Amino acid sequence: MSYLTIASTGETYEFVVKTSLLNIIQEKGIGMESPCGGRGTCGKCKIKILKGEINQLTQEEASHLTKEEIKQGIRLACHVKPQGDLTAELLEDKNIKHEILTEGYMPSISINPMIHKEVYKLIKQNFKNDLSYEEIIEDVVQQKIENNNIDLLKLLPEAFKQGEFTGVYLGGHIIGIEPGNTVKETYGIAMDIGTTTVVASLVDLIMGEEIASVSEINPQTEYGLDVLSRIAFVQSNPKGLELLHKGIINCINGLTLKLCNENSIAASSIYEITIAANTTMMHLLLGVNTDSIGKAPYTPVFKKAQNISAGSLCINISPFGRVYCVPSVSSFIGGDITAGIIVSKLQKADENILFIDIGTNGEIVISKAGKLSSCSCAAGPALEGMNISCGMRAAEGAIEGIKIHENKISLKVIGDKTPVGICGSGILESISEIARVGLIEKTGRIKKKESVMESNPGLEHLIIEENGKRKIHIAMGAKEIYITQKDIRQVQLAKGAISSGFYALLNLMEIDMVDLQEVIIAGQFGKHLNVDSLIGIGIIPEALRDKITYVGNSSKSGAVMCLLSQQVREDIETIAKDVNYFELSTMDGYEKLFTKCLSFS
Amino acid sequence: MSYLTIASTGETYEFVVKTSLLNIIQEKGIGMESPCGGRGTCGKCKIKILKGEINQLTQEEASHLTKEEIKQGIRLACHVKPQGDLTAELLEDKNIKHEILTEGYMPSISINPMIHKEVYKLIKQNFKNDLSYEEIIEDVVQQKIENNNIDLLKLLPEAFKQGEFTGVYLGGHIIGIEPGNTVKETYGIAMDIGTTTVVASLVDLIMGEEIASVSEINPQTEYGLDVLSRIAFVQSNPKGLELLHKGIINCINGLTLKLCNENSIAASSIYEITIAANTTMMHLLLGVNTDSIGKAPYTPVFKKAQNISAGSLCINISPFGRVYCVPSVSSFIGGDITAGIIVSKLQKADENILFIDIGTNGEIVISKAGKLSSCSCAAGPALEGMNISCGMRAAEGAIEGIKIHENKISLKVIGDKTPVGICGSGILESISEIARVGLIEKTGRIKKKESVMESNPGLEHLIIEENGKRKIHIAMGAKEIYITQKDIRQVQLAKGAISSGFYALLNLMEIDMVDLQEVIIAGQFGKHLNVDSLIGIGIIPEALRDKITYVGNSSKSGAVMCLLSQQVREDIETIAKDVNYFELSTMDGYEKLFTKCLSFS
Repeated sequence: MSYLTIASTGETYEFVVKTSLLNIIQEKGIGMESPCGGRGTCGKCKIKILKGEINQLTQEEASHLTKEEIKQGIRLACHVKPQGDLTAELLEDKNIKHEILTEGYMPSISINPMIHKEVYKLIKQNFKNDLSYEEIIEDVVQQKIENNNIDLLKLLPEAFKQGEFTGVYLGGHIIGIEPGNTVKETYGIAMDIGTTTVVASLVDLIMGEEIASVSEINPQTEYGLDVLSRIAFVQSNPKGLELLHKGIINCINGLTLKLCNENSIAASSIYEITIAANTTMMHLLLGVNTDSIGKAPYTPVFKKAQNISAGSLCINISPFGRVYCVPSVSSFIGGDITAGIIVSKLQKADENILFIDIGTNGEIVISKAGKLSSCSCAAGPALEGMNISCGMRAAEGAIEGIKIHENKISLKVIGDKTPVGICGSGILESISEIARVGLIEKTGRIKKKESVMESNPGLEHLIIEENGKRKIHIAMGAKEIYITQKDIRQVQLAKGAISSGFYALLNLMEIDMVDLQEVIIAGQFGKHLNVDSLIGIGIIPEALRDKITYVGNSSKSGAVMCLLSQQVREDIETIAKDVNYFELSTMDGYEKLFTKCLSFS
Repeated sequence: MSYLTIASTGETYEFVVKTSLLNIIQEKGIGMESPCGGRGTCGKCKIKILKGEINQLTQEEASHLTKEEIKQGIRLACHVKPQGDLTAELLEDKNIKHEILTEGYMPSISINPMIHKEVYKLIKQNFKNDLSYEEIIEDVVQQKIENNNIDLLKLLPEAFKQGEFTGVYLGGHIIGIEPGNTVKETYGIAMDIGTTTVVASLVDLIMGEEIASVSEINPQTEYGLDVLSRIAFVQSNPKGLELLHKGIINCINGLTLKLCNENSIAASSIYEITIAANTTMMHLLLGVNTDSIGKAPYTPVFKKAQNISAGSLCINISPFGRVYCVPSVSSFIGGDITAGIIVSKLQKADENILFIDIGTNGEIVISKAGKLSSCSCAAGPALEGMNISCGMRAAEGAIEGIKIHENKISLKVIGDKTPVGICGSGILESISEIARVGLIEKTGRIKKKESVMESNPGLEHLIIEENGKRKIHIAMGAKEIYITQKDIRQVQLAKGAISSGFYALLNLMEIDMVDLQEVIIAGQFGKHLNVDSLIGIGIIPEALRDKITYVGNSSKSGAVMCLLSQQVREDIETIAKDVNYFELSTMDGYEKLFTKCLSFS
């Protein structure tokens, strides 16, 4: 056995010499981001080695590290193979505050939650000869108590002592008994589990309203930033599934506790958690293997709605607590999208409406007068500021907007701080502006300094040429912030994926763009992306400029609706079955369309 | 915090100064019998104090200890209040082998277990477009998979990888999926959880036969020998319910593991455990409070059959494993008796049959041509050798039979060892013989030496008079073995309780004793009690001598039948509802009858 010591905390961890340092760090739950899932391509898992025998620096590492970093002993954890005891220091600052979108539009619905309560008094007449407490209760509530409910049996003696009890119902079925009158304390939580962020809203089921909302970065991001990296992590690591499963369960328990503490509510007063998430997140939530999602024919293990006891998932709410998983359509159109559909009432539309959820994955749904079709495109994390040289999440110090005017760049920085990086909306706007003023060609290639001097005199100072490679200067903060050719390619791929999906789906549904009445934009980007960037970069065509509506985090809003309305649940389960799904990658001519969509018009 | 050290093992246990030493020992699970439940009346919790400050010897203790014992520092743990750190030595020998009755008569039934399996192959045609694994399986097995079954979802990927899977059914409903063909490995366990002993039989559900049987003393005996002591323990100890619940769960897991290991079977191949037990044991098994059983109007929390997932009880069998609890009639006629009824086919009788289960409690059922009535009588543990001066359980060295012939006593000792005590059957036979030869009066009073000299010359040497108290010499082993006046009173109470119940029930059902066609004797005593003792002591009237049948452990046999036949389960659930129960203690004239039944013939 060898030992890893983290210098700053002094904590030590036992490990077996045979695996990478990244594996060790992730298995011990020490915490380190690995957007590429340990494939050595993202260069994000930097760590400073202070002591201990390890392998020599690899070429792949050298390409991700500066000379200064190499001198300091900084390495990529995924390429480090310890030979014995090791002392290292983590570099990442985990205390930056992230901005996560918790708000979202929600249509008005009639309140009729699955969970409801009734209060009963026990009177002398109830005590018939020879009946057990269980049978007396069945007599009083006029319903059989389902077998297999030990928690209910356990509470009966106290209910009889108090002479009054509250029945807890799911739909029409009694699932719990509480001594005394507990009607006032009836809460639920609606959750959106995104690949990157988790949002939880506390909902008063009696008043039918959201009370508070909290959020956190999905702890699974440590093991890969997009769903495919996480699927790869599960495949390559024997404990991967368990790690990802426990990570999200802990996160749910943490958010629940936070909501309870901040609002002075007992966790036992929460009876249901409704969860909207993409199909991979939903599998990981239940601890179900994701291999089949990751390879053709992309079959999910389950996609129907699941109604599970919270206890069986080790989620700490009422002993009668339930978890409702919003149903999916396919491996790549998940419950987050069916939630978005119900929020946007796409199934009831009598016009043609296009719905795009822009996240790590881009999902597109078209409603042709209520008939729903969908496709999914791997946008990648670039639009969220990941896999970008100076990229970062939407947090303090992130450039979220830029304008180039009269040869100068003006910035909008979150928290009005000195800029330290660029977040998703900033990247989108940067590239939109760079393209607008002509610093890049239609192919996305950065122009040469001389060529800019000719075409856009005064802007050539933004082109930096180093070792035969070009990049574009954006700002000078603590260090220089720039956009590389690789960054532009990443965004180009995202834009190409989404807009080709968009055109392909219109084609498949035989809808002319002019016949679209509305374009609904959902997801993390609703708050930060402006129409100009979306159009400027070519994700949304200019022709649709006036038809754009933002619905914000419709995944969470849909989960709230599921919490509050039995009818919504019925509807969403029907929708999940009725939506057509097109797998773009296997479609004739899609390659060509995609290539065309890469271009900056 | 103070520490208790057990000298022989060197183990130390933290405790808070405020409670009795017995409480500490029981809470830490160190193990010590306390037949009276810590009330200080049985004198069984002897312990040697080696070091540490404690309270002075109490009068109650002095009455249970010899001078020699007091000199050695022996005390009763229930009366010892430690003031700080303490070193003590346990006295009890826990390694004696107990004889427990595992065999029992079982009528022949047609085999149709609740658990069965079907094997399916996955072929190309099953893989329809857009279906999830879950939906494909539903298509193949032509049945919806119940929600809330995450364990099933988790196994689907492996089933698809293998291309063949086994469906596990409970009744007609699919509850589990296993990759490959697992039909050959389909087992269940039938258990009888008695107040004193727990018996478990491994059953092959395919062949429909018992394979092996193991047993253990119920670990709850440490906290009180009869159900009322355990109910009192739960009431007086905040952790009492949890301790008793965990004790029996651990015991079930232990017996299961033993059956699996000894028969080379994986615990995951066990799909159901059927359990017959008295109502108190059943409540403790599920961790349900027993207070209401212990006081008028003696209402149980539940009495219907329970069908529970094994996982929710922390019982380690198949992830799809179930636990079936045989239904009870009332607080004092439990699943062990409904099991006995089904084994004896009482509900189908066209004659008058009397059924007695003699254990720590005595339960009596009369079938008047199929119409069933029952009563229960607190026999107490005397008939099992407990609460008797020289009493012990049926184990090696126990006197299990005696005969007095020509002024001499001949003994039958279990294992042909030097006698160390008397077990239940031995006590019954001793007192039967003592009464027969006239050493006691009809009232049960031991005659004076002089009076015996007159009436039974030659036997007077058996009468020992000490400090004005009389006892009867039985044998001289390592120490003298005798029967005291108090012992005779204990047995008298047991005999009075059972025979008064017997006569009361005959009266209530308006049946003349001569019209009884059969007397069925069930329970632990079936194997050890002979007809002569039962009649000699007056539990069964002489007139019924030729009508007695022994069915042995019918509680366990009934549990086996429930495991093997869906029909039996239906029948037993009907029986549990149909049996009349009479509470003797509230019956007019019962006191008088009881007093009359105390007398020896």
